[in-house]
Amino acid sequence: MNNFNFLCDTKFIFGKETEKAVGSEIKQYGKKVLFVNDGGDYLKTTGLYDSVVDSIKSENLQFIELSGVKANPEVELVRKGIDICKKENIDFILAVGGGSVIDTAKSIGVGVYYDGDVWDIYEGKGRINDTLPVGVVLTIPATGSEASISAILTNGHSKKAIDDTRIRPVFAVMNPELTYSLPPFQTTAGCVDIISHVFERYFTNTKHVGFTDRLCESTIKTIIDNVYKVMKNPRNYEARAEIMWAGTIAHNGILGVGRDECWGAHMIGHELSGEYNITHGTTLALILPHWMKYVYKHDVMRFVRYAVEVWGISQNYDNPEETALAGIEKTKEFFESVGQPTSLKDVNIGDEKIVTMAEKCTKNGNIGGFVSLNKEDVINIYKSALE
Amino acid sequence: MNNFNFLCDTKFIFGKETEKAVGSEIKQYGKKVLFVNDGGDYLKTTGLYDSVVDSIKSENLQFIELSGVKANPEVELVRKGIDICKKENIDFILAVGGGSVIDTAKSIGVGVYYDGDVWDIYEGKGRINDTLPVGVVLTIPATGSEASISAILTNGHSKKAIDDTRIRPVFAVMNPELTYSLPPFQTTAGCVDIISHVFERYFTNTKHVGFTDRLCESTIKTIIDNVYKVMKNPRNYEARAEIMWAGTIAHNGILGVGRDECWGAHMIGHELSGEYNITHGTTLALILPHWMKYVYKHDVMRFVRYAVEVWGISQNYDNPEETALAGIEKTKEFFESVGQPTSLKDVNIGDEKIVTMAEKCTKNGNIGGFVSLNKEDVINIYKSALE
Repeated sequence: MNNFNFLCDTKFIFGKETEKAVGSEIKQYGKKVLFVNDGGDYLKTTGLYDSVVDSIKSENLQFIELSGVKANPEVELVRKGIDICKKENIDFILAVGGGSVIDTAKSIGVGVYYDGDVWDIYEGKGRINDTLPVGVVLTIPATGSEASISAILTNGHSKKAIDDTRIRPVFAVMNPELTYSLPPFQTTAGCVDIISHVFERYFTNTKHVGFTDRLCESTIKTIIDNVYKVMKNPRNYEARAEIMWAGTIAHNGILGVGRDECWGAHMIGHELSGEYNITHGTTLALILPHWMKYVYKHDVMRFVRYAVEVWGISQNYDNPEETALAGIEKTKEFFESVGQPTSLKDVNIGDEKIVTMAEKCTKNGNIGGFVSLNKEDVINIYKSALE
Repeated sequence: MNNFNFLCDTKFIFGKETEKAVGSEIKQYGKKVLFVNDGGDYLKTTGLYDSVVDSIKSENLQFIELSGVKANPEVELVRKGIDICKKENIDFILAVGGGSVIDTAKSIGVGVYYDGDVWDIYEGKGRINDTLPVGVVLTIPATGSEASISAILTNGHSKKAIDDTRIRPVFAVMNPELTYSLPPFQTTAGCVDIISHVFERYFTNTKHVGFTDRLCESTIKTIIDNVYKVMKNPRNYEARAEIMWAGTIAHNGILGVGRDECWGAHMIGHELSGEYNITHGTTLALILPHWMKYVYKHDVMRFVRYAVEVWGISQNYDNPEETALAGIEKTKEFFESVGQPTSLKDVNIGDEKIVTMAEKCTKNGNIGGFVSLNKEDVINIYKSALE
């Protein structure tokens, strides 16, 4: 186990009708709120918009709305948000939505305290000085951004991430009922994203991390168990709740303590989002099974463990590779069974941009921690995803 | 799943030599430190005392030492600590030790902000107003007090607990090397305590908490896997590290989110500590197997799950009770195999004080959440522990 520091100081307010508490949480931090959302119909049809506004008003807080966040959120809206915050003396940012809305809020938060253009920070040319506090009402379990130290932003075809403990939201209001209206495809893309966050900790070269290995396996199995229940009945509160909470645990850092992480597949997926504007979780369904097949020989027994502990596959003790490959195949079949594509063919992508994406992906050097991947490796993985 | 609020804002600094960071952590909160410890020889022989003092001095912080904390810590020393804090304008309390030292520090912390006698708070006659910040250098993985909202104090034969989110330590420095010198009996008593903290969440009447069920099982299995390694080689860093981190997770609240808890067996054990000054974890080894046998019929399938998922027992589908009982028997055998007594006979306790203890235990009404226990039930459990 590696040495580690860990602090997750997000307050979780979880359960039915909890969005009504948002005003009283905000007033511990500020008086004038930037209310960020994506303007989706569900905000009005579910009553969420009114609940949030009522809760803010009942605490005598002021707010200005910034709507129109898109999937794979773009820097333009962040710049607009920063301007509003500066001009209007905003002291708190509330994100009501999924990862794109939260990451927009986080980006605005740090942008307010940065003198230049906020994209500098994403390019590594500028530093985070401070942030406005950000609170969340979560509507899509997927990115884990409600309690993570990460944010992702898109500028043209470029998609980049920042990591900083100061951008962790101060609170996350999580009502599973708010996810009832999430369409099946978005639900399961979110589940792939959650599983991917666990993989990024689970496939490690660090030895003697059996406890977190088990916690990782528990999280993946929870998603597998509950996603079918939600597909069958989108209003299954208990299953929605399990997925929502597992999504947070998957990415608040607790599963990664004391171990090296591996973000190779995630980065390969990001390039697909950047080029083709594909839902983030779906890019991971497209890439992960192929990444797994490409790297499993590096540590066959870790993939055997995965196959046995997560999928309950009977181990072939004479042929560990067979067991390892069966676990990878199960993963692929699982993604397909919940309606996620696992081949670039399925989303009508050919080999045209593979080299470009691989170049962008590796322009700062090799990627990945479990296995270090260079441009050729990335090209190979994209190519195997074509099949 | 129940609605819940959860925030664990303890910062963990985990790994080798981390005690050297204690000064720089403290200076974020205060300048004049009350340094609480038990005066044990290990403080000097391991070099821990000097490391901590050097780290404090290197940050130009002042400190006053309060030594002599006993197991099942007593209110007298807490009162003395409160006087020192008030007289010397202490602004930070550092606990270097195990649960007794930490709970002493927590009690001093709240006592400083309370006008009457601190025991009032434990008796429910006084309220917590505020606390001095408390930091921890942990030397015994057991009580989980390094990140819990609880503290326990003894006054004569009376042992009582408080729970308040404000008493959670602000940081916990956790170096597994510091536990190398922990004697086998204290090591395994700590492991029983850790398992008990999980049981208190695991044996619940709340349905649809499969995710936290799995996290609970992972934590128990981690202790079982690693305790034998440590008994074989007390300087096994990796096994010491797994136990230490599992001990924190067992009781920082994350395993209890969204579910009713059950502290019946814990309270029955507390009376044994109060009357006979037995190590806390050992009282739980004495009580838990008998409590389990007394309550398992309330939800046989939960005990079947426990037997199968934790102990890997082959399920007898025709006779669930047999499987449930096999899991309970395994638990008892496990405690015995690590040198912990499971019968009051083993610690030379007869039936003399059983009624007295049962009366004290239930004087505020029934105890326990999984099964509600009255005085007669508690007597029955003590009696079965005589065998």
